[in-house]
Amino acid sequence: MRIDIITCLPRLLDSFFEHSILKRAQEGGHVEVVVHDLRDYSLNKQRQVDDYAFGGGAGMVLTIEPIARCIRKLQSERTYDEVIYVTPDGERLNQKTSNRLSLTENLIILCGHYKGVDERVRTHFITKEISIGDYVLSGGELAACVIADSIIRLIPGVLNDETSALTDSFQDNLLAPPVYTRPADFEGWKVPDILLSGHEAKISDWRFQQSLERTQARRPDLLP
Amino acid sequence: MRIDIITCLPRLLDSFFEHSILKRAQEGGHVEVVVHDLRDYSLNKQRQVDDYAFGGGAGMVLTIEPIARCIRKLQSERTYDEVIYVTPDGERLNQKTSNRLSLTENLIILCGHYKGVDERVRTHFITKEISIGDYVLSGGELAACVIADSIIRLIPGVLNDETSALTDSFQDNLLAPPVYTRPADFEGWKVPDILLSGHEAKISDWRFQQSLERTQARRPDLLP
Repeated sequence: MRIDIITCLPRLLDSFFEHSILKRAQEGGHVEVVVHDLRDYSLNKQRQVDDYAFGGGAGMVLTIEPIARCIRKLQSERTYDEVIYVTPDGERLNQKTSNRLSLTENLIILCGHYKGVDERVRTHFITKEISIGDYVLSGGELAACVIADSIIRLIPGVLNDETSALTDSFQDNLLAPPVYTRPADFEGWKVPDILLSGHEAKISDWRFQQSLERTQARRPDLLP
Repeated sequence: MRIDIITCLPRLLDSFFEHSILKRAQEGGHVEVVVHDLRDYSLNKQRQVDDYAFGGGAGMVLTIEPIARCIRKLQSERTYDEVIYVTPDGERLNQKTSNRLSLTENLIILCGHYKGVDERVRTHFITKEISIGDYVLSGGELAACVIADSIIRLIPGVLNDETSALTDSFQDNLLAPPVYTRPADFEGWKVPDILLSGHEAKISDWRFQQSLERTQARRPDLLP
């Protein structure tokens, strides 16, 4: 899988893709993440990529020209499954979308910044608009990382133990059960006895029950 | 405002707080972000902060001891408004929560990693559990950045132009209207005439109408 991220602030993404699971996923050949600096596609000497909004108002808008050049160059090199724009008015990301996107070959993710991108980019180049939640961020960079992370960890072989992702919250429409580790007693706060019992079947039942109760209490909307 | 972030992967956050609005917000004295390496609070020589889950199963769990030491040290130095844990089963972040948190003085954000934290941390130390959306990430670090970013940009004086945040999506339960910038004609794709008209009142009406239509089409749930 290949993910191309287009941004006017590439340095912001540096440390993220150089650590943890995302680093290992790239080293292991599971995914290639390529970050493109929008300014490299600017047509003017100042490497400008934004301008004032027509009609006035606060905030700058990313111009269509550098974005069009960058996307067209990438599309001339390979076929993309989706050209994603991260925006708070997009379709909300959920685990189902991440699962589906983890099966694609090539993705472009365009990061907005400032007031967003010229609407014509959205109309003519973007195939999918995704929001990571009902809040506003200073740019699309973090949201692009969130989308990339949620997808990449689902690619088979990326996590050390494949069952690890399958037992996460949302994969079966249930929240994950509580987890405990050593010490069994911390200042009088104890681990539930059942988890120390060694009865695999009972532990499995307990966990399912806890998942169900937690989902009923916190997120009844997830239940059928 | 001060935000303390506790993580077992501090390097992952490096580039994020050193760029863009978050760098300026810190330089301008609007916010102090302090990242704490959980391993500095480990009691053993290997600086271990995780262990196998009681009861078996895939994935490691962050242990209570280093977390308890770190949170108690911070709480001995100042009073915190909230001790936040970022977790997919928490209360979903929205703009209202971000607005409210932007008015607090001191926040701790604890990042989970691997399978999560020992449940006793959540029971005894955490005052607020926040999810950034219905998907699973490889750790809480990105989610902590998302929460911090959504809060920090709302602190008065952080954005260049204060009206900029007020016209964002969600601040008035409406999605933002489309934006356009130069050129007015790009390969035959034109900017709506109204935006070039110079009629401020008409432009304002048009934008409101566009916001309303976009919200009706994409997110009718936001409307009263």
